[in-house]
Amino acid sequence: MRIFHRMAKMIEQGALRPGDRVPSVRKLSRQEGVSISTVLQAYVQLEAQGFIEARPQSGFYVKPRLWRPPAEPAMSKPSTRATPVSTSELTLNILKAVRDPRLVALGTAIPSPELLPLQQLNRMMASIGRRDPSAGNSYDVPPGAPQLRMQVARLALDYGCLLSPEEIVSTTGCQEALNLCLRAVAQPGDTIAVESPTYYGILQIIGALGMKALEIPTHPRDGVSLDALEYALDRERIKACLFTPTFQNPLGCSMPEENRKRLVTMLTTRGIPLIEDDIYGDIAFGPERPRAVKAFDTEGMVLLCDSFSKTLAPGYRVGWCAPGRYQKTVEHLKFTTSIASATLPALAIAEFLATGGYEHHLRKVRRVYAEQVRLMTEVIVRTFPDGTKVTRPQGGHVLWVEMPAKVDSLDLFHRALAAKISIAPGILFSAKQKYRNCMRLNCGTPWCKAVEDALATLGMLVTKQARQA
Amino acid sequence: MRIFHRMAKMIEQGALRPGDRVPSVRKLSRQEGVSISTVLQAYVQLEAQGFIEARPQSGFYVKPRLWRPPAEPAMSKPSTRATPVSTSELTLNILKAVRDPRLVALGTAIPSPELLPLQQLNRMMASIGRRDPSAGNSYDVPPGAPQLRMQVARLALDYGCLLSPEEIVSTTGCQEALNLCLRAVAQPGDTIAVESPTYYGILQIIGALGMKALEIPTHPRDGVSLDALEYALDRERIKACLFTPTFQNPLGCSMPEENRKRLVTMLTTRGIPLIEDDIYGDIAFGPERPRAVKAFDTEGMVLLCDSFSKTLAPGYRVGWCAPGRYQKTVEHLKFTTSIASATLPALAIAEFLATGGYEHHLRKVRRVYAEQVRLMTEVIVRTFPDGTKVTRPQGGHVLWVEMPAKVDSLDLFHRALAAKISIAPGILFSAKQKYRNCMRLNCGTPWCKAVEDALATLGMLVTKQARQA
Repeated sequence: MRIFHRMAKMIEQGALRPGDRVPSVRKLSRQEGVSISTVLQAYVQLEAQGFIEARPQSGFYVKPRLWRPPAEPAMSKPSTRATPVSTSELTLNILKAVRDPRLVALGTAIPSPELLPLQQLNRMMASIGRRDPSAGNSYDVPPGAPQLRMQVARLALDYGCLLSPEEIVSTTGCQEALNLCLRAVAQPGDTIAVESPTYYGILQIIGALGMKALEIPTHPRDGVSLDALEYALDRERIKACLFTPTFQNPLGCSMPEENRKRLVTMLTTRGIPLIEDDIYGDIAFGPERPRAVKAFDTEGMVLLCDSFSKTLAPGYRVGWCAPGRYQKTVEHLKFTTSIASATLPALAIAEFLATGGYEHHLRKVRRVYAEQVRLMTEVIVRTFPDGTKVTRPQGGHVLWVEMPAKVDSLDLFHRALAAKISIAPGILFSAKQKYRNCMRLNCGTPWCKAVEDALATLGMLVTKQARQA
Repeated sequence: MRIFHRMAKMIEQGALRPGDRVPSVRKLSRQEGVSISTVLQAYVQLEAQGFIEARPQSGFYVKPRLWRPPAEPAMSKPSTRATPVSTSELTLNILKAVRDPRLVALGTAIPSPELLPLQQLNRMMASIGRRDPSAGNSYDVPPGAPQLRMQVARLALDYGCLLSPEEIVSTTGCQEALNLCLRAVAQPGDTIAVESPTYYGILQIIGALGMKALEIPTHPRDGVSLDALEYALDRERIKACLFTPTFQNPLGCSMPEENRKRLVTMLTTRGIPLIEDDIYGDIAFGPERPRAVKAFDTEGMVLLCDSFSKTLAPGYRVGWCAPGRYQKTVEHLKFTTSIASATLPALAIAEFLATGGYEHHLRKVRRVYAEQVRLMTEVIVRTFPDGTKVTRPQGGHVLWVEMPAKVDSLDLFHRALAAKISIAPGILFSAKQKYRNCMRLNCGTPWCKAVEDALATLGMLVTKQARQA
């Protein structure tokens, strides 16, 4: 089952070298005792990520290496003290900056409109509105439209979660889901453990709710360090954890399955809930979509949060959560917070999921993002100064770039804006404003000369800063 | 300018009696020095509310009184102590009960779908989606779509508010607006002054945010008692007020303009912000839409909250607020809470407002609701036991019914449900669960035999209870 990873490792370590023919699909299938289609899927992913190439009538070959993969950042070393999150205008300013259509938008994790089935969704929404003008216009009170919850339950089976529609609450995007779940399990003043670095939206939620964030060391491939977490749990009064175990933003890391199991045990025995942000879960570059941590939860202590904003329609704001034993509380909080979310967008998403176009759509999206991540990495290697480290995301569509120690990404942010490029400076991703020499780059924009040029400009700006420092 | 009120009073007090001819439009226009259309507008409203009737070729006459208007409830006498709000499942259960299409829905303040321009709005949304599939599908980050904020600013002029689009933040309905504004001005543990009775959604927000509610005596016609409020302000640490000065839910009362001015002065001199819920403001039965309290605010201390849920499209969840000096905080809270609301519904509402159909639509809605309120009141007078008191709402679409002291509206709620009728029991409208012998009835459902029969059934149930007690 780990054909993709094993082949990738063999190529990376030089066991298979550029120009080598890889085993035929049929042969590997027999040898490993897996189906032809499993091997083929792995090869397609290896091709998308630039490891191998198909030659007509001849099979798959290891691709010539035009570049060496850049070094990866090391495990993070955040402060070991819980800290209030200051609400920063910078976040809003960055989000606002991106509205400017003249910018090359590398600053926010927004998927390419070109990759989204927007016309199809808009048509479905129009047709639902025509069919029954009033159906889509009553308050869609919590837990929300049964049609949507039914489809979500069906999808969740794919990543190991046996949820009934009654265990799901629809929300205004994943952000509202995270808010409601956090409010359900913790109070102002409480300490929440988060990955470090973590998505700035998560830090801003914690700050706005008057809670404190405790950043846990996080590995750029395997995610949060469970040893460090265990140490912190024994030492601090942690009320809840809020992690993104699958294709984390900004690192793109994904927890190995054994870590997921250990995490659930570690938290459940201590009675500490986990809020699991799974917003990038469906955008796997490898052949398999990892099982959610929620899949291993037998006690209702994992509150799974997700949305269709990264895969189908950011502007529809259709999200959901499966809050386990906090179901009633979350339903009530959803009601008090906004009564309901917009009805028609939820019904349109439900119809899209029901008609079966989602899997096909995901296959395309995964291939494209994997390729864009690879292309952007190549340009960074070419144009950024020595000492630059880049993550190797296993899914999603962002890259985390660690630049030489003296580079100030906030300064870079302003210089880049002047050059009509947006980036997300590293300090946004830490409650303690660490990661000053890091930045997150969005790979959601379709590859084009403008993106390539923007990266080259960034490389030039960074090189200049690194020299001056 | 107060022609409607003066004529209504003359008729109520018997100065003009059933069958009397009222002055001709032309004559009254000359006499009062106002335009013909002003008088005509007043007469049309008097007719809608059953005071006068037009006789062809002859003019307007005072209508024969088939019923005496029922007595009004007195000023409320809530507890004088701030109290935490317990989150009650009853609220959610009532909201859920209403989803059952087999119920006669008198329990929630939902406008009739028949009265809403849903087809037109759905068509506009479809056309925006077709015209530019991606425009409606990026994150509509705070403060939200300029098109909508522009139209809101234009509308606000009508009720005395000179707002620029930059002073407006779009939200997921009025409920989210109230949440964000409350979080911007107060912290958990703080005391918020509210009207008594007040909309249960407001109490539930206060409860969910860990704040305390202090209920202020409220008059069923003139709204919150400013004398009582002043006394409370001198005696308690009140962090903010959250009032619905215009066509309050559930009383339908509207503060006289002099009270609005006094309220602003009273609060501004003490540095206490007012969150003004204006959700029913556009549904005036009288000839004039009262000016918002915000119109008298020169210091940015009034946070005006509103939505189009009661007038255009509940399921679109398009609301907004003008948070005065708390603008930046509210924008930031909106971002952390849900990033953005659904984009297309907001753009569709903006287009509807821009194309000018709103005023025409409001004229129809106001007439219909005024008439439904009158018809429901007539049936209540006929079928409820002696001692029943009913409000005389000046706008909106709800009635507040005070039944004989021993009637238990929670018991009535369950009996009514069994008879396939929903009501909103009085205890929902008080943090201290007062108003046990009261209920709120929705007049938003179009008048039909089912509604008339449901009211008669309620009358029978109440009469039985009143006798047993």
